[in-house]
Amino acid sequence: MNYPSRILEQAVNAIASLPGIGRKTALRLALHMIQDTHHKASIIADALHKLDTEIKQCKKCNLVSDDDICAICASTTRNKRMICVVENLRDLMAIEDTQQYSGLYHILGGVISPINGIGPDQLYLESLVERVKNEGVEELIMAISPTIDGETTIFYISRLLAPYDVKISTIARGVSFGGELEYADEFTLGRSILSRTPYHQNGLN
Amino acid sequence: MNYPSRILEQAVNAIASLPGIGRKTALRLALHMIQDTHHKASIIADALHKLDTEIKQCKKCNLVSDDDICAICASTTRNKRMICVVENLRDLMAIEDTQQYSGLYHILGGVISPINGIGPDQLYLESLVERVKNEGVEELIMAISPTIDGETTIFYISRLLAPYDVKISTIARGVSFGGELEYADEFTLGRSILSRTPYHQNGLN
Repeated sequence: MNYPSRILEQAVNAIASLPGIGRKTALRLALHMIQDTHHKASIIADALHKLDTEIKQCKKCNLVSDDDICAICASTTRNKRMICVVENLRDLMAIEDTQQYSGLYHILGGVISPINGIGPDQLYLESLVERVKNEGVEELIMAISPTIDGETTIFYISRLLAPYDVKISTIARGVSFGGELEYADEFTLGRSILSRTPYHQNGLN
Repeated sequence: MNYPSRILEQAVNAIASLPGIGRKTALRLALHMIQDTHHKASIIADALHKLDTEIKQCKKCNLVSDDDICAICASTTRNKRMICVVENLRDLMAIEDTQQYSGLYHILGGVISPINGIGPDQLYLESLVERVKNEGVEELIMAISPTIDGETTIFYISRLLAPYDVKISTIARGVSFGGELEYADEFTLGRSILSRTPYHQNGLN
């Protein structure tokens, strides 16, 4: 494709370097920004520049943050005796959106996955052990994807923390609310029977 | 959705202001840029900033350009007696990519479309008339979409240019190369019979 302008070509190349965005979409977005009369391109440019230069990672939980310690770790109202271990920020945001959890978090940065070449060294495990050792943590909730790699990671962490007096739990796995049993996969349904829970009349089971 | 960082939230909002990009995609792109170790966010930011501040519009043909006069209008090798009238830059680039045309262009910026509130005043028609009047143009090729609005626009331009000695042609409409007749729509097929062309052995017909 021949571009009539070098500036346009550079913008298209830059936008198309993002995952899932091809050159046709990039051109469409660039032309939209050129035609926009509210300097949308500059507004986005400023936001992205800040994203690259000003954003920090929380020194405790590894969460993306505006400060050295994120708002969750710095909060005085959250339960500091509980840490929910998650793979990434998206999972953390999903849990936050449920408004059912008021403890702290620890982002691992992924799961142990030999097939993708990700070993324990590439995850934030050392800092997790440090936190358990020094911060009086009583419970660790493993909110890790229920996959082979996820299970491996949970097992690895449980071995790593065996010397310490901390309770380790995993989030409940089972059939989804609103889902129909006949469409649940065999593995989930089988596990949900093995891990059945006593019925409580308040609905929490 | 609660964002753990104001900078991240601003970036997501800015990216999601683009057409066809929702907040989930914007978050995915922003996190990709945060994790990128080659300062992709700043590279894109610089390209977008230039797009907003440095890009110009060719004073003759309205094409996006790095200079006041675009490379096509400024070229000494192109046929300046022919102007191909197109709706927008994407159509121009599609024609350029065919490498079958060596004349100049004129971008209208759209077509007359009463239903969308676009009248002749919003298109670059005056400057087209000026060019026909002053630049010794011999032929105007209408490369406008064969829709009702497109046909209206061609008709309007032909009336506007009636006083001047300029040949007006439209790009050939008919069945696509490689297409099968049974799948062509009735209107196209009907028109292609009415506008049949004499057969030439060199294949150009």
